[in-house]
Amino acid sequence: MTVQQVQSFAAGQWIVPGAGARPIRSAITGEVIAEAGGPLDPAAMIAFATEKGGPALRAMTFHDRAKMLKALALYLRERRQPLYDLSFHTGGTMADHRTDVDGGIGTMLVIASKGRREMPEGHVYLDGGVEQLSRNGTFLGQHICTPLQGVAIHINAFNFPIWGMLEKLAPTLLAGMPAIVKPATTSGYVAARAVEMMMDSGLLPEGAVQLVSGSAGGLLDHLGMQDVISFTGSAATADMLRGGVMGQGARFLAEQDSLNASILGPDALPGTPEFDLFIREATAEMTAKAGQKCTAIRRMIVPQDATEAVLDALKTNLAAITIGDPREKTTQMGALISTDQRDDVLAKAALIGAEAECVYSADAVPEDGAFMAPMLFHCADPDAAQTIHKTEAFGPVATVMGYRDLPHAITLANRGEGSLVTSLITHDTGVARDVALGIGSYHGRLYINDRTSMAEATGHGSPLPHMVHGGPGRAGGGEELGGIRGVMHYMQRTAVQASPDMLTAITGQWVPGAAEQTAPAHPFTRSFTDLQIGETLITDPRTVTLDDIEHFATFTGDTFYAHMDDAAAAANPFFPGRVAHGYLLLSFAAGLFVEPNVGPVLANTGLNTLRFQKPVSPGDAIHVRLTVRRKTRRTDTYGEVRWHVTLFNQDSDQVAEYELLTMNAY
Amino acid sequence: MTVQQVQSFAAGQWIVPGAGARPIRSAITGEVIAEAGGPLDPAAMIAFATEKGGPALRAMTFHDRAKMLKALALYLRERRQPLYDLSFHTGGTMADHRTDVDGGIGTMLVIASKGRREMPEGHVYLDGGVEQLSRNGTFLGQHICTPLQGVAIHINAFNFPIWGMLEKLAPTLLAGMPAIVKPATTSGYVAARAVEMMMDSGLLPEGAVQLVSGSAGGLLDHLGMQDVISFTGSAATADMLRGGVMGQGARFLAEQDSLNASILGPDALPGTPEFDLFIREATAEMTAKAGQKCTAIRRMIVPQDATEAVLDALKTNLAAITIGDPREKTTQMGALISTDQRDDVLAKAALIGAEAECVYSADAVPEDGAFMAPMLFHCADPDAAQTIHKTEAFGPVATVMGYRDLPHAITLANRGEGSLVTSLITHDTGVARDVALGIGSYHGRLYINDRTSMAEATGHGSPLPHMVHGGPGRAGGGEELGGIRGVMHYMQRTAVQASPDMLTAITGQWVPGAAEQTAPAHPFTRSFTDLQIGETLITDPRTVTLDDIEHFATFTGDTFYAHMDDAAAAANPFFPGRVAHGYLLLSFAAGLFVEPNVGPVLANTGLNTLRFQKPVSPGDAIHVRLTVRRKTRRTDTYGEVRWHVTLFNQDSDQVAEYELLTMNAY
Repeated sequence: MTVQQVQSFAAGQWIVPGAGARPIRSAITGEVIAEAGGPLDPAAMIAFATEKGGPALRAMTFHDRAKMLKALALYLRERRQPLYDLSFHTGGTMADHRTDVDGGIGTMLVIASKGRREMPEGHVYLDGGVEQLSRNGTFLGQHICTPLQGVAIHINAFNFPIWGMLEKLAPTLLAGMPAIVKPATTSGYVAARAVEMMMDSGLLPEGAVQLVSGSAGGLLDHLGMQDVISFTGSAATADMLRGGVMGQGARFLAEQDSLNASILGPDALPGTPEFDLFIREATAEMTAKAGQKCTAIRRMIVPQDATEAVLDALKTNLAAITIGDPREKTTQMGALISTDQRDDVLAKAALIGAEAECVYSADAVPEDGAFMAPMLFHCADPDAAQTIHKTEAFGPVATVMGYRDLPHAITLANRGEGSLVTSLITHDTGVARDVALGIGSYHGRLYINDRTSMAEATGHGSPLPHMVHGGPGRAGGGEELGGIRGVMHYMQRTAVQASPDMLTAITGQWVPGAAEQTAPAHPFTRSFTDLQIGETLITDPRTVTLDDIEHFATFTGDTFYAHMDDAAAAANPFFPGRVAHGYLLLSFAAGLFVEPNVGPVLANTGLNTLRFQKPVSPGDAIHVRLTVRRKTRRTDTYGEVRWHVTLFNQDSDQVAEYELLTMNAY
Repeated sequence: MTVQQVQSFAAGQWIVPGAGARPIRSAITGEVIAEAGGPLDPAAMIAFATEKGGPALRAMTFHDRAKMLKALALYLRERRQPLYDLSFHTGGTMADHRTDVDGGIGTMLVIASKGRREMPEGHVYLDGGVEQLSRNGTFLGQHICTPLQGVAIHINAFNFPIWGMLEKLAPTLLAGMPAIVKPATTSGYVAARAVEMMMDSGLLPEGAVQLVSGSAGGLLDHLGMQDVISFTGSAATADMLRGGVMGQGARFLAEQDSLNASILGPDALPGTPEFDLFIREATAEMTAKAGQKCTAIRRMIVPQDATEAVLDALKTNLAAITIGDPREKTTQMGALISTDQRDDVLAKAALIGAEAECVYSADAVPEDGAFMAPMLFHCADPDAAQTIHKTEAFGPVATVMGYRDLPHAITLANRGEGSLVTSLITHDTGVARDVALGIGSYHGRLYINDRTSMAEATGHGSPLPHMVHGGPGRAGGGEELGGIRGVMHYMQRTAVQASPDMLTAITGQWVPGAAEQTAPAHPFTRSFTDLQIGETLITDPRTVTLDDIEHFATFTGDTFYAHMDDAAAAANPFFPGRVAHGYLLLSFAAGLFVEPNVGPVLANTGLNTLRFQKPVSPGDAIHVRLTVRRKTRRTDTYGEVRWHVTLFNQDSDQVAEYELLTMNAY
């Protein structure tokens, strides 16, 4: 077959492999299928990113970038087949490719969707609400997040060349930062193909994404405090890189070794649906991607009395797994990425073997390529053991150990000194609570499954774009994904202290106390486009009478004593006597500010953070201030307007406050 | 005078200085006033913290801990005078002591108050909302935060012995983590006195706080991935410590050198209120605490044409400052902490002098102690300069530099490569926005002030408990305070994936889809104490008639066309024809679920996140599900109940959803 020349994409140019290029072998045939590497100009790449890509991305709003990501994901989805075809040479099965390719595209789509829904249509992300720093409100606080002005270097692992790339690219680009992607060389030919597609799409601004195929050369030497290194790989490599860039000020996010555990609950004994579920998940984690998953279960922590049953069930399952050429439809488990990787796994397994007994392995695997059979260990004394809690054999290898009671299980889980994920299979909510409190601070993700959730559960080993992926301690201390949380790694949080007018100018969101512009007409008659931030309507007052309260009570059925019985209301710590219903006030407020005729306002879709601040007694007169707080385009024809609404009484005291949501036509 | 023996508090014992104790001199007289140091047993201290303090703190809820902090702060406030008295020997004035002592106590009070208001009465803090991970809702996601199970080592700077201690202790203890405090030795005698008071108060559980007076010995060698080091001090020390603990997995938070800047806006020329404001703030930052503040202004970035005017005004102000014994009421600026510190500042000033001209200094300062006069520099070529952007002279030293235009000012501000705070004095909101976007990613805090906010502004140099304190790059990359954000540094975020029942058990908050318990009586008749999480009322249905809609419209005045005009409503993208008002639905819902008689429900105080999900047409029948979501005790007699409310139509489609807040008697 032809040897693929895996190119780099640097400073706007595709660069073919040059001096020092490295051959890459197929995991299944052992043949050289590609070569990658050769000299690049790191300084030029960084300059291209920061001088072209960064400014172009920062000129876009979060919504512009989210739309770009969605388009990019859909573009890739249409072109998956060549990626699947190439991927067989990494050793994975079709199911593994779907996890990688479809999983990566799906992750990008979720991040894009969250960007539209949870970030503003603007350039500044707000972290939390306004802080009242002064009595009269002329000086306020607001935390904002703005994109870092450097470049993100993504150093990816070999196991998921597409998912690993897209799950880092999506939050980076959404934040407004350019990226230089450095895939693992052994599977980088798959990533390179996808980068080629992304470039062909024309969807990305120049400089937003570059690609290093082969060695990263001196790329990291050029970084500073506006740059990010996001690394996935071994702890040894992470420590080396981290040490190298310490002092340069670049952020270093690492997702590295992890001795992920799965705990079988004390209630989940043989015969329960949870026992069978545990065996299914454990088998899947050992064999999917031939165990080359950073989230795979390495340690199974099971009730001491259930140990034999667990081992028997797993041995049966493992013996039934078909290992072989992943291009064959019947194959359930393919090859490791390389024979080097297999050697490494076998060496680690040998270390584990000094503390645990190998209770299952098999010799009958294909001879070409990098195949190996799963290896199951049983450790009889997990308290005395050391290696099994700290040695990650990155392949189809796991160790079963028994626990005496739940505190012992918690201690064993935490012996991993920090992991990406621990799962707990139990049907007992008390067990779930005790485990969550006992192990939470050691683990980045806790996956709990039982008969109730198993039909919809997403699997122990699957990081989801909605949830944080990463873990403390040995797992590297980094975090990725988790929706907008993952975007924050590429932004800086800044505490801004300023007047309401300044905050309004910076955030694009009207802050109480800022200038109120008098609308040239009733704001309900003005289109989304015409409405200005800060545009304000102050209504006439309306007196709330006792008759109104009586009438509202009878009409709605809300005859709560605070509205009906003067003495009972006065005996209550909140009220001076009978008071108006909160919902009566809301309803009257709408009556005061609504413009009834057909106009650009399409619907009231909801409201947020309504607080009744002062009781309204019969005879009080309320009026309303309605101010345009924020505008967000939602479709081709209409957008959301968030209004700040305040109700005042005749003494100008605030009696209620809320945020009103409407949809308004452009 | 007597030489104070500054004790350590280790593993429950007060330890007097021993072999290797170091003398500490008064900053104002030069006399030896105290001695501190001597061997301690770090392993025993850590064990005491993790085996006694940690479990005791974690057994308390966030609210228990917040109440403890409030009591502790009030206890200290009653005993401020001896702390002030001692503090004069650190060189500070009474105003400086108030910043330190009252500022520290105030910070603890704010963190305590935020703990009560923003954290749950429980053991698990929720980060964000529920993530829908499955179509049918049997498998959901929720991020939780739980306290780290190790110990926090607080290494504090000399300048604010009380504030520096309390601003770290408050978030740490609120998180549920024990602390070992290591104050700077030169002012540690003040901190030790406050720790003595805290211990005397009996308010802290055993092991919650320990104190190292003098050297920290091998304390850091014993740390691991459940521990935190929170360091404030020089970049050199931070790098040394960081390197030393790298690989142990402990979190390292640093707040270190910072070349804070203040920018005078292009609009804020001489003659404007902003110009005078700039001069006032700049003078205060140079002289308060004799410039020994991590947030003090080191670089003043001013319009080129205003440079002379700025220098003249500052020189006049500085010449009028009375420097001397801080015990004298007329003294405006005291001494540096020590003659060593003065030597260091003078050495740094000499480096700055190679790039900038010293335009103000004075010789007439007291000879005893560590007094020095402010030094003002002017740098004519800030683009070519290097030292002024990276050398922090930690004393009353600042450099003025001119800028050509706003982009140049932004470039100069960012040349500091990361700072704790930059201020901007401008009355132009456009300038504020451009600067915020241009420098945000380089600075932890941006302080904007003008004529509008100056009466209430809190000062360039004051970190507030509400706002994040820390900065990227040279400033150490750490963050402290910022309300609950600062508490998170002592907790681990974990992504939990589980069924609604499991999430409810772990979080103490009912999650939609979890078991609904049928109340034994109407929930409005049940006391706060009796109500159970998940307790649910399902009401009878009520048909919404066209008459109801007409009547409501007339009564409230809300005659919006979607409710009144069938054709106009149908032409709208949201509605099939005339629909019920959202507030009519809310009001009818209350009529359906309210129990009118006097009972434990005291008031409806508000609602959150109301969404109208499906239109309700005339003839539709709605019913309500009302479920106890969370309970929080608020006073001695009542607490807040948050109810999850869902409105359904006759087809069991959700038409609206919200969270209702009531106050209920115990």
